[in-house]
Amino acid sequence: MTAIDRRSAIALTVAAAAAARPAQATSVAVGASALRGTGDLGIAVERGRGSVRIFETTRRTALARVEGLGDLSHASAVFSRDARHAYVFGRDGGLSKVDLLAARLVARRIQAGNSIGGAISQDGSLVAVANYEPGGVRVFDSESLEPVADVPTGAKVVGLVDAPDQRFVFSTWESGTITIADFTDRSKPKVTRIEDAGKQPYDAMITADGRWYVAGLFGEDGLALLDLWHPERGARRILSGYGRGEQTLPVYKMPHLEGWGQAGDVILAPAVGRHEILVVSMRDWTEVARIPVHGQPIFAVARPDGRQVWVNFALPHNDTVQVIDVEARAVVKEIKPGKGVLHLEFTPRGEQVWLSVRDEDRIEAYETRSFARIASLPAEKPSGIFLTARAGRMGF
Amino acid sequence: MTAIDRRSAIALTVAAAAAARPAQATSVAVGASALRGTGDLGIAVERGRGSVRIFETTRRTALARVEGLGDLSHASAVFSRDARHAYVFGRDGGLSKVDLLAARLVARRIQAGNSIGGAISQDGSLVAVANYEPGGVRVFDSESLEPVADVPTGAKVVGLVDAPDQRFVFSTWESGTITIADFTDRSKPKVTRIEDAGKQPYDAMITADGRWYVAGLFGEDGLALLDLWHPERGARRILSGYGRGEQTLPVYKMPHLEGWGQAGDVILAPAVGRHEILVVSMRDWTEVARIPVHGQPIFAVARPDGRQVWVNFALPHNDTVQVIDVEARAVVKEIKPGKGVLHLEFTPRGEQVWLSVRDEDRIEAYETRSFARIASLPAEKPSGIFLTARAGRMGF
Repeated sequence: MTAIDRRSAIALTVAAAAAARPAQATSVAVGASALRGTGDLGIAVERGRGSVRIFETTRRTALARVEGLGDLSHASAVFSRDARHAYVFGRDGGLSKVDLLAARLVARRIQAGNSIGGAISQDGSLVAVANYEPGGVRVFDSESLEPVADVPTGAKVVGLVDAPDQRFVFSTWESGTITIADFTDRSKPKVTRIEDAGKQPYDAMITADGRWYVAGLFGEDGLALLDLWHPERGARRILSGYGRGEQTLPVYKMPHLEGWGQAGDVILAPAVGRHEILVVSMRDWTEVARIPVHGQPIFAVARPDGRQVWVNFALPHNDTVQVIDVEARAVVKEIKPGKGVLHLEFTPRGEQVWLSVRDEDRIEAYETRSFARIASLPAEKPSGIFLTARAGRMGF
Repeated sequence: MTAIDRRSAIALTVAAAAAARPAQATSVAVGASALRGTGDLGIAVERGRGSVRIFETTRRTALARVEGLGDLSHASAVFSRDARHAYVFGRDGGLSKVDLLAARLVARRIQAGNSIGGAISQDGSLVAVANYEPGGVRVFDSESLEPVADVPTGAKVVGLVDAPDQRFVFSTWESGTITIADFTDRSKPKVTRIEDAGKQPYDAMITADGRWYVAGLFGEDGLALLDLWHPERGARRILSGYGRGEQTLPVYKMPHLEGWGQAGDVILAPAVGRHEILVVSMRDWTEVARIPVHGQPIFAVARPDGRQVWVNFALPHNDTVQVIDVEARAVVKEIKPGKGVLHLEFTPRGEQVWLSVRDEDRIEAYETRSFARIASLPAEKPSGIFLTARAGRMGF
């Protein structure tokens, strides 16, 4: 685990750039080696091609493409605390580190046979990957991608998130547990396991303040809730009607929990299999209302000020996005960006939302106040969209 | 209002760097012209010297100093949306734009005779400055610092903040109004004035979601509250006991409102003149508890997860910081960094807090979990500390 001296590395990069092209430096492109801030950058995962497109949200232009990231179906990403690097988690167990400024792949590691999702520690020093095969969580140094620790589980890991106080939290499918791994001592994690959290957790989310961990259950109705301020109290079931049990429609795709939209003291959550969004009170974790929507919702994401929630849908309604006014609890706008709207992400202060439109090979941005389309950029079969503002957020 | 072509500017900077020092490029310092992310940068205002110290929070090192910013007593700062530039508001009416990567002052404008505070618009394109003398708010293009619009008030402006939907909100001292200026059309702001908000507002804050604007009143007890989702409902008085009226101690310094710590569904606010922190419910804006503290509190700032609130104090107790456990509603730790602790700022995910210790000529960082001091850097009479994570936050 040799730490890379970042200053030396930067100096060398600059030296190399200066030596290699003193005469043609004026043609250096943004995204290659130019001096620029990193607070307005984003990546769109190009699923089929195994690449990411780097773009920026100020002038809303595409900057570069980085290839060679392997199988990116269901890929997700987190960012280094300086917002320079993206860590991309691929389905093939690959963990890739992409330099957004130099627009290149700086490290890659196939860390398991089959993985789903990852997280970065509160202090930015550790990257954790959740594995299906062979199960467990593997933890790497964020600078070098050298292995630091393993947390074996003997079961598929889902719903891996970071939490305050240098913790990772995750659930296990077969054994139905929630695990808290405290990495204060980075090579000797203190592991706390909550048994009987619920049957077959398939995904999870954590509230924006990093306190409440909620796991969706495939094997029973309801959700598992854990208070991370008081893990000794164990997990409890909430929303007993939530799940597959009371479905009246075939479930085309289980909704994601990561996208649950927190707005004031309510959370707007996609119902399973129904054309509805549930309004859940965070005071007592009960359902207080249902909002009818256009199809089976997948992501329901709150604008950062909590006044709107944007929703996308499963097939055959995945060409549509609906906007809910949180106070009115009603759909106030419908947009049809095109087929295959897979993911959406707000800029951190909420003036824009970015969407991937897979079947149209583009990503788009909308102004959230006027609903005007303000950008359309080419991308090859884009899926997840992730902005560097995530570097400063908990719970991804 | 000529927009600077940012790409050209970047290319020229790189070209100049390459031409000027091809042989000595390995000695290029971070903070001069090296390629680096900007998500982990911060500035400390060096009040007496008229300069800012640039530092970073990953390795916790000082990077550079930028001079020539004028009178920086009571100075504050906001950041460009790409987190590359800081806009520093000085007491002398000076608005300075600092390039954190090149470590230089790129633009400066004396925009009024005497000002206090400023804000950057939601989309990052406008910078607004609040003026005491001659009053009013002046708005500038964030790229060029060229003037865009004026909002005259005929009164001193205080408590200027940005709000969602491209608005600025501020209060006026003599006339006791709250004004909302909507800059959707940047050169023709739509101005809404709420009269009779309260007597002599002296400062204000906005909740993290950008919805509730709260102005402190010097001329009467209580605070003025405005719901920015419903400005048509007008301002109402809350916390009728809050203020100078019921004071039992001389008030050494009116506490800031900007620092009010939002933690879950309560806000922890410094009491005026008393050795107490008030716990205020955000459900109905009533006081639910008081927490005794070491002195007259100035800032009460919540750790981003809302589990702790850190408090500093007015003279003669300004050598001390106390940490409140929000759930226990009690002080759990006291630290004595040295005389003149003027300001404190958390890293965006809350693992560190940075303090300025004016009379000791240093800034310090503490790990919030262990309370260990993890950095001490020289700075000349430092006052405000501001991290680039503010670029992605509302309400500054």
